Amino acid sequence: MTAPGTGTFGDWLAIAVEEARAGRDEGGIPIGAALIDRDGTVLGRGRNRRVQDGDPSIHGETAAFRAAGRRPSYRGTTMVTTLSPCWYCSGLIRQFGISRVVIGEAGTFTGGHDWLAGHGVEVVVLDDPECAELMAAFVRDNRELWLEDIGAGGED
Amino acid sequence: MTAPGTGTFGDWLAIAVEEARAGRDEGGIPIGAALIDRDGTVLGRGRNRRVQDGDPSIHGETAAFRAAGRRPSYRGTTMVTTLSPCWYCSGLIRQFGISRVVIGEAGTFTGGHDWLAGHGVEVVVLDDPECAELMAAFVRDNRELWLEDIGAGGED
Repeated sequence: MTAPGTGTFGDWLAIAVEEARAGRDEGGIPIGAALIDRDGTVLGRGRNRRVQDGDPSIHGETAAFRAAGRRPSYRGTTMVTTLSPCWYCSGLIRQFGISRVVIGEAGTFTGGHDWLAGHGVEVVVLDDPECAELMAAFVRDNRELWLEDIGAGGED
Repeated sequence: MTAPGTGTFGDWLAIAVEEARAGRDEGGIPIGAALIDRDGTVLGRGRNRRVQDGDPSIHGETAAFRAAGRRPSYRGTTMVTTLSPCWYCSGLIRQFGISRVVIGEAGTFTGGHDWLAGHGVEVVVLDDPECAELMAAFVRDNRELWLEDIGAGGED
């Protein structure tokens, strides 16, 4: 793992952050993502839509993947996401052979990114302060909703 | 792993097979699934919709999960599916704490079900001949589409 912080990865992260902020402003869970082709083309972008659509299957990463439409292969693509991908989204990245995942932050929540690194995915964690603050504020104010989003609700 | 073959698991599998057959009849990928509550209630059911909706994010299991809507917890639920869940769908099952997965067959394709068993999910493989025949016929006649669905397309 490296932490470039700016440059190309920073530009890509800005797209994911824009999605996350839009989700927050809609009253949703502030996690955004984009799928980027090897030449920098944005293939798809999206955000968690659990609240907005009542759909638990739409995490940031699955939204971006869906928006990219059908493709024969994901070799050379990068999934950029504001937060460490949960097991569901890590499984997506592994199954479809997405080559790289660029992560805004992994402090609020750590999913399967080490597992992905062990299976040949290039993993970049940027330790971005805005991503961390977006999630920290959300979790502080919406604990039950956050637990629901990671399958850990109803346990209090 | 056990192979009950009939009884409750067989009844649940019949729902997944009905979905898979419907998918085949629509020209889609014949994989179906259902999410069942601990009391046997069908919470959601669905089928792969890559072809029908042009949506690569809708596998049988994610379709069933989506159809079940928002829930605080999945404790005690069973995902029944005609085929061994791919890493994407295995990640879904692990992340959301789905307690059991009942699998029609794992011969045509083996995804992450051993990994799930290692993480506390009860795994039941039924070795159902109809599930195996549905997939075998599909893969034989639609090889590129099948490879696309598991992220292995465009390699020939």
